[in-house]
Amino acid sequence: MTHDAGCIFCKIVQGEAPSFKLCEDDLSFAIMDINPFNHGHALILSKRHAANVHEIDDDSIAAVARTARRIAGAVEDAVKPDGINIVQANGPGAAQSVLHYHVHVLPRRLGDNAKLNWSLSPGDHDAIARLAADIRARL
Amino acid sequence: MTHDAGCIFCKIVQGEAPSFKLCEDDLSFAIMDINPFNHGHALILSKRHAANVHEIDDDSIAAVARTARRIAGAVEDAVKPDGINIVQANGPGAAQSVLHYHVHVLPRRLGDNAKLNWSLSPGDHDAIARLAADIRARL
Ligand SMILES: [Zn+2]
Ligand SMILES: [Zn+2]
Repeated sequence: MTHDAGCIFCKIVQGEAPSFKLCEDDLSFAIMDINPFNHGHALILSKRHAANVHEIDDDSIAAVARTARRIAGAVEDAVKPDGINIVQANGPGAAQSVLHYHVHVLPRRLGDNAKLNWSLSPGDHDAIARLAADIRARL
Repeated sequence: MTHDAGCIFCKIVQGEAPSFKLCEDDLSFAIMDINPFNHGHALILSKRHAANVHEIDDDSIAAVARTARRIAGAVEDAVKPDGINIVQANGPGAAQSVLHYHVHVLPRRLGDNAKLNWSLSPGDHDAIARLAADIRARL
């Protein structure tokens, strides 16, 4: 497993930085987004450090996709959104924020007018913690 | 392989409807989007009919993800965008247009102000055909 010492997502995957963890398997790690666009916004990280879709290996991209499906199902149950986008960003034109491969499970509401990419604003940590427990219970 | 008789993407996968095809493997099928948001906009379809991320099987979601990575690399080479989003939509809140699992490889330009979802407008078929040939040559 390759990690990058300065990377916040590598620290989270290794347990060296805090997160609202949902689940993990050999190659993927799911957490709540602490800057949620809507309630239930989650992230699936590759455990291996890879900057973007061009650098990630086949096994990791497959594991992250399968975990995204699993999380999307639990988020659907937990927050009953009007839709869900699965979104991944690469490069400045896509406003990629952390240079470590990650996939957003983004619950949508009719009329929420989401942009690529949405602006970041911090969520309430107590509310995120409660929602994380609810989503975990549905996995 | 399960297909839905009324589904346009099932028809494309089976060769019963035309497309600007890029590549295929056992479980995935890549084409150009005929309503491109930007130059190089491509779609990866699951070969098996599944309405959305909740219905797709693990092998298909993994195959589509690996093909998306491969297409993203060729699109990056061909059109040199400022970034790329990988986007998948589920349900009316996400403005899902075709109820058959598909992933967008969406080249981004700084300042293109893309929304989820972008409005659809038909592209020039000759230009799309030339770009498809260029992308295929880079796979
Ligand atoms: Zn990292
Ligand atoms: Zn279909």
